[in-house]
This record gives sequence, structure tokens and C-alpha cells, in this order.
Amino acid sequence: MTASQTIALDAMGGDFGPDVIVAGAAAAHEKLGNARFLFFGDEGAIHTALDKFPALKQSSQVIHTDKKILSSDKPSTAIRNSKDSSMRLAIEAVKEGRADSVISAGNTGALMALSKMILKTLPGIERPAIASIFPTMEKPTVMLDLGANLECDENVLVQFAMLGATYARVVMGVENPTVGLLNVGTEDMKGHEEVRAAAAILSSIKFHGTYHGFVEGNDITKGTVNVVVADGFTGNIALKTAEGTGKFTAHILKDAFKSSPFAMIGYLFASGAMKRLKARLDPQKYNGGMFLGLDGVAVKSHGGSNVLGTENAILVAANLVANGFNKRVGDEIASVMAQMNAQKEKQESTAV
Amino acid sequence: MTASQTIALDAMGGDFGPDVIVAGAAAAHEKLGNARFLFFGDEGAIHTALDKFPALKQSSQVIHTDKKILSSDKPSTAIRNSKDSSMRLAIEAVKEGRADSVISAGNTGALMALSKMILKTLPGIERPAIASIFPTMEKPTVMLDLGANLECDENVLVQFAMLGATYARVVMGVENPTVGLLNVGTEDMKGHEEVRAAAAILSSIKFHGTYHGFVEGNDITKGTVNVVVADGFTGNIALKTAEGTGKFTAHILKDAFKSSPFAMIGYLFASGAMKRLKARLDPQKYNGGMFLGLDGVAVKSHGGSNVLGTENAILVAANLVANGFNKRVGDEIASVMAQMNAQKEKQESTAV
Repeated sequence: MTASQTIALDAMGGDFGPDVIVAGAAAAHEKLGNARFLFFGDEGAIHTALDKFPALKQSSQVIHTDKKILSSDKPSTAIRNSKDSSMRLAIEAVKEGRADSVISAGNTGALMALSKMILKTLPGIERPAIASIFPTMEKPTVMLDLGANLECDENVLVQFAMLGATYARVVMGVENPTVGLLNVGTEDMKGHEEVRAAAAILSSIKFHGTYHGFVEGNDITKGTVNVVVADGFTGNIALKTAEGTGKFTAHILKDAFKSSPFAMIGYLFASGAMKRLKARLDPQKYNGGMFLGLDGVAVKSHGGSNVLGTENAILVAANLVANGFNKRVGDEIASVMAQMNAQKEKQESTAV
Repeated sequence: MTASQTIALDAMGGDFGPDVIVAGAAAAHEKLGNARFLFFGDEGAIHTALDKFPALKQSSQVIHTDKKILSSDKPSTAIRNSKDSSMRLAIEAVKEGRADSVISAGNTGALMALSKMILKTLPGIERPAIASIFPTMEKPTVMLDLGANLECDENVLVQFAMLGATYARVVMGVENPTVGLLNVGTEDMKGHEEVRAAAAILSSIKFHGTYHGFVEGNDITKGTVNVVVADGFTGNIALKTAEGTGKFTAHILKDAFKSSPFAMIGYLFASGAMKRLKARLDPQKYNGGMFLGLDGVAVKSHGGSNVLGTENAILVAANLVANGFNKRVGDEIASVMAQMNAQKEKQESTAV
């Protein structure tokens, strides 16, 4: 992460506005060393926030706009009224080469739709996916798609597999990442037609990783594979079910510690460990939904992100840029497409 | 639960065989008072196990067979070779009125396929669903389908809603159960066509319950609704993701308690509370996948069920019988079908 990056921030997205976003940028700025920041939004509010961070202020530029997309807007409405909005201007900065990446905590649907429209997808990628990192019993796992594409055919699922495998390899440093397709069982005949067809393709092509086979819902947190691939409907249900179960367990754990005087004393002794546990699972640590497959780097920060969450979303984007993710995934996709075309031609010539 | 019931048990299903199944039956027998049991399987092994429970033995009959379906059999193979198997004989006992319900810890796919083939579905139900109870922050929630039907049209989803709502009402005692459709967002335009069409029907019909709207993955354990309805693919992914996340949390909690001497002392004080917490979430307590929608009561016990799990699966079946679930869901389905037909006729006459 030595080359200087420029990071475009939608300062108006999210529940907490410029204060938290600027503070998160300051934390990321410290870690990144020489990054530059473009802030899009209300210049008064942004400058006030920047005054607290002189080092960041020196590396920042503020582009004023009083237009912003509301998180309650439907994506279609948001796009129609997106001109000069903080989100759109930030994306356009990437398109026009003034920034290397864009981060927004605003409306997810609008961010995806605008990013797709403005940045376009990489060659060979039909649709971008939302990817995120999950803590597991083993190393963290990358899972995609988490909700951008509700229905996906086998080709799209294979593209997602390449996006995830390349991420695990070049950003997470897993030499030979394993890829699993999320399904309701591990036997070959299980599941939807699309997922079975994707399995057939992944079994027959060579890529920088290994196709593991089908995985089930419990394999996600078990860490069975480095990459879990699903259509956006299934991925979103799994993501939110996992989040909900985590919250539920924390809730009843709290109840348990309050259930008797002994348990309360136990909590006093174990509180340090419990705080570390909480920190280990803090959703803010895993913040940053990456929009993989775009010709540009765009990261969605959670609407409720605090300073730590914002910092992490920025670092996620910076990591993608620093590791040349888009260039390397482009090479992988080109290689896979060539193999698939060769297979097709072979089948056709055999048919003749 | 006063009328005497007869319960058919596949004594050969599950990982632990007749010993655990008979011991579970003994525990259930004690709770149920006057239930009778039919055990299907190896009579030598069953009699040996029954010798430990004289009261149960008095109320039991053993039907010998040395044929059994393996858990590794594909459902199609299992059905072809099912004649005289312990599972099939147990289901046939329900069909022929010799038993009120059947419980098996054997091959899930085979149990579903055979139950469907032999018992048939209730009038108005196209396909049976697998339903189970989830612990939540509020009252437990019933969720279905958990994997019997990978793709479901809107009519099937509406039938599942009626199965779930009737279960919550007549078995769980929820006066006016709320029903949610599992989706990737709560807004009307979200999700698959089938789920949106099911929402339109559920919003327009009257039933003994209230249609809540769409719910997301995190709503399951939040207890937002009494009944969560999904197609079997989505439901299975959610179920297993929740199970996996629960295990993962337990695993890192254990790690946390081992992380320092202070934490270990804390554990000593809190161990009673932790054991109660573990008991509260014990999967054996929530054992018993109900096959709802069949013209007969069939319950799948988990393959790894212990005595407590087996007991609970039997009690789940006994509860369905004692509360006349099938009769009452039949009435509900008839009422809903009449309303749907009336709507259709009205539309057609308006079209003319």
C-alpha cells in the first residue's frame, strides 16, 4: 500500500453524516500514510468536521453540493434525481480518474444502480456482486452475492466465483483459495438447475483456486471454504440470518450473566474476555460491502457505521486498489472465458 | 392430551438405533400417560431395550422386520427398496389407522417421499412442508418449508402460510398468529415474483391470523412474527446458517472463557448460568421436523437425536394429534380456497 491513492467519499450518506465519515477518514488516513481524500457534500459541515483533523485536512479536497440521495428513496427515483448528488459526484470522480475508489454509506440500491450505470462492469462480467467478509472458525471467508442480483444463471455464478477467488488470493493472501456454491445439500443432484450448471462449469475449468463443491448454510461460519458463492437472494437471506442469530445469542448471553448473583460475579471476572469476544465479532470490523465486478472500486459502508466502521470500509476499498484487484480479476475472467469458449467450440464441432 | 394415542416408531432410523429410540419413547410415555407405541424393526434389539422400561413395554407392540432404509440411500433408491422396511411399515400403520402418528430419525428424503406417497396430502394442499420451531428473543417461531420443496409458486406459499398459522394457533396457543414471508427486504417491490404474488393473496384473504408482510433473515430469531414462510431452498439455507452461526458463537465463547485466568475464574462462577443457557438453546429441545400438510401425522427426528431429542420429537407428533391439527388446518384451507375461487370468479365476471 505504498502508491498514493485518492479516495472519494460521499460525506452525506449514512445515519450520522459528515462528522463520523470525516473521523473515519482521519483514522484510515493515519493507517494509509499518503492517501488523498475527496469529500462530496455540504462544505460547511465537512470543513467543520475536518478542522478537528489537521493532517487529514491537508490531504483533502471538499467538493460542495447540497443535493443528496435519501436512504428512503427507491433506486429508480434516486437515479432520476441523482444529478449533482454527493453520491453520484463521488462515483463520477472514479469514472473520470480523479479518484481510485468511492465509498458511500448511503442508499445501497442507488449506490449499486449508479455505480453500474456510471462505472460499467469489467469485460466478461455481466453483473457486479456485493461481497463481504465473514468471521469463521477458520480464516475469514468471503461471500457473494449478498443481494445485488436476486436471480443468477450459471454464467453469472461462475463470474462471482472468479471475483471471490481472486479477492481471496490477491487481497486476503490465500494462495489456492477454495470455492463453494451455497446449496441445500452436498450431493451432485441437489439444488436449483442454475447452481448445478455452475458446478459443472467450475469442475471443468482451470482457475487460480480450487472448486470445492456445494456447501450448506452451516459451512459459512465453519469456514469450510475461502469463498462462498450464492445468488443475491440466497446470499442476503444467509447474511441477515447469521447477523440475527449472532444478535440473538448475544442477547441471551447477557440474560444468562444477569440470571444469578454467581453469574454476575462470573461476568466481573470474565468481562475482559467478553469485551475481546465482542470486539472480535464487532460488525463494524467487518464493515464494507464490496461491489465486485465493476470497472472501478466502489464500497458500501453500512448506514449505521461508526468511526471504526467507516475506517474499515475505506481500508477495504484501499486494499482492493493497492492489490490491483480489478486488473487481476480481469485476467482471470479472460482466461476462464477462453476456456469456456474452447469447450463450446469443441462441443459444436463434435456435434457437426 | 387425554384421549389415548398410538404412536408408530421407526426403531431403526437415526445414528443410535433402538436403544435411544426406546428410551426416548419411555420418557414420552411417562409424560403422555396413556399412549400406546408400535415399534418397527429388529425385535431382538427392541425387546432388549424395552426390558429396561416395564411400563412402556406394557403399552408397546413390536413388529419385526429386518429391512431398513439407509441414511445414505438416495430417496429414489430408498423408495424402490422400501417394501417391508421399518420406516415404510411405520408409515403404513398410520395410513391403515393402526397408529395416529409416525416418527422416524431415518433418511429425511425417503421419509418425506414415502409419507407423501402413502399418506397423501390433505385436500387443498399441493405439497407438504417441513416445519420446525425456532427459539427467538420473543416467543418461539414456527418456520416452513425447511427443505422439502426447493421451488414453490404463490399458491404453495399461501398453503404453507395456512399450515404455519394453524400450527401456531392450535398447537402453540397463539390466538392471532402473525405470518411473514421471508424476503430480502420489507418493501412491496422486493424479491421474487412468487413471493410478491403470495403477498398479494395473503393481503386479500381472511384467515385465523394476520399477514404481517415481508420479513428478513434477521427477523427469524428476533421473533418478529409467529410464522415465517419460505420456499424450501431459502428455508433450508436460513435454518442451516442459523445452526452454524449458533455453533460458531458457542465455539468462540468457549475460547473467550479460556483466554485468561480471570476469564476461567469467571467461568467457574457463571458456569450454572452457562449451562442453563446451553440447555435453553439445546437443539435436542427443538427436535422434530414436522411434515405438515399430509393426511396423517409424520415427524422427522434428527439423525443424531439423543433420548431427550427423541422424546421431544414424539411429543411434537403427539401434540399435533391431540390438538386435531389436521382437521383444523383442513377447515382453514377450505375457507381460503373458497375465498380465492370467489376472487377469481369476480375477476372473470368483471373481465366479461
